Amino acid sequence: MTSIRLYDLHARDDRRPSPFCWRAKYALAHKGLPFETVPVALTDIPAVAGGTHKTVPILEDRGKTVSDSWAIADYLDQEYPDRPWLFGSPAERALCQFVETSLVASVARPILLSYLKDVYDCVLDQDRDYFRQSREKLIGCTLEELASGRAERIEAARAGLDSVRLALKGGAPFLSGAHPGYADYIAAGFLLWIAVVATAPLLKGDDPLLPWLARVQDLYGGLGRAVSLRAMVA
Amino acid sequence: MTSIRLYDLHARDDRRPSPFCWRAKYALAHKGLPFETVPVALTDIPAVAGGTHKTVPILEDRGKTVSDSWAIADYLDQEYPDRPWLFGSPAERALCQFVETSLVASVARPILLSYLKDVYDCVLDQDRDYFRQSREKLIGCTLEELASGRAERIEAARAGLDSVRLALKGGAPFLSGAHPGYADYIAAGFLLWIAVVATAPLLKGDDPLLPWLARVQDLYGGLGRAVSLRAMVA
Repeated sequence: MTSIRLYDLHARDDRRPSPFCWRAKYALAHKGLPFETVPVALTDIPAVAGGTHKTVPILEDRGKTVSDSWAIADYLDQEYPDRPWLFGSPAERALCQFVETSLVASVARPILLSYLKDVYDCVLDQDRDYFRQSREKLIGCTLEELASGRAERIEAARAGLDSVRLALKGGAPFLSGAHPGYADYIAAGFLLWIAVVATAPLLKGDDPLLPWLARVQDLYGGLGRAVSLRAMVA
Repeated sequence: MTSIRLYDLHARDDRRPSPFCWRAKYALAHKGLPFETVPVALTDIPAVAGGTHKTVPILEDRGKTVSDSWAIADYLDQEYPDRPWLFGSPAERALCQFVETSLVASVARPILLSYLKDVYDCVLDQDRDYFRQSREKLIGCTLEELASGRAERIEAARAGLDSVRLALKGGAPFLSGAHPGYADYIAAGFLLWIAVVATAPLLKGDDPLLPWLARVQDLYGGLGRAVSLRAMVA
């Protein structure tokens, strides 16, 4: 049972910044499946797990290899139907995809642009040149130029989380209702990603998101508790 | 069976602008329940259906009265469990609430501010003074002042729909997946609301939302087909 391995993006000081790997770790924990993470450098991804994958997470289970967080979640529901469902119905899965696209548009994009230099400062030495070149090509300026205008973008990212705040205002402990679910792992993954690298606060200390985020961190024996929120909260 | 009545916000030329009434009408149709709508003026709401409700939709069914679109959906699932579920699970309901809060933050707020004067121009004569006074108090300026700066807000509302566009990019015909569901009715309700009153286009003619919106309009014998999208699409 302990043979499940998850390749997890590795950064300086054993930080684990990938939001998609966080989702996959929570998905495994939700299913109650023991697993070990295998830290992997960004530039080493093409060399691991058979060498056919370009991104992490990558799951290895009983001789099978699955990459992409959605494919991993589907695999787990399919292979382990006797354990708690990640998606209790096709509609639930579709609605979780809406949660993702909504948060990508309102949160992940402004977050990424606000904290890209912070991410760079945390990547392993072997990844630095690749990270800078590939990202600067994408954004059309240097990481330092991008970082210089980030105050406004951090405001936008903070405002973009309003949908999560409003949803929690209904009183349920989780975005998925009384029980945590994949929508919570998607949203929390985006925040843990930034908490791991942030050098400027994204949230204010009285943000109504924080009790929810703490609840998600505490799940499954404290899976997300190792991530300190100190640098992300003003 | 035809005794179900739904009080539906009434505007000039028999327009039905309320996004929340649209949701309730789709919820009834989803359950396969015949119903008749009772058009009601904004200022008449306190006088109908027992006189204890401040907003529409209000549902009357077998001597019971239910207002609020979420309460109506819950009532229908509870009273008619042998018909297609609006919420197949508590998690589905919670995720639909996230869809709502996400669209309120990104779409409904900028839409409302962009088209408030258009809504005013459509309300019944008896509602005009009340509408102007109550809304101007809320926004802190006149409806005309608000309307003068709307070009930028329409852009924001159009961009705010990116989460819906991205979700549909996955290839499913509906936000709820292969079959239409409450999330579709929430999102389409916001658009039908504006289509009914718009004097300036919200969407471009090649917007990838439009085929989805047409699919929702065509559901249940063409429930939303009476709404022309002409004024809303450039």
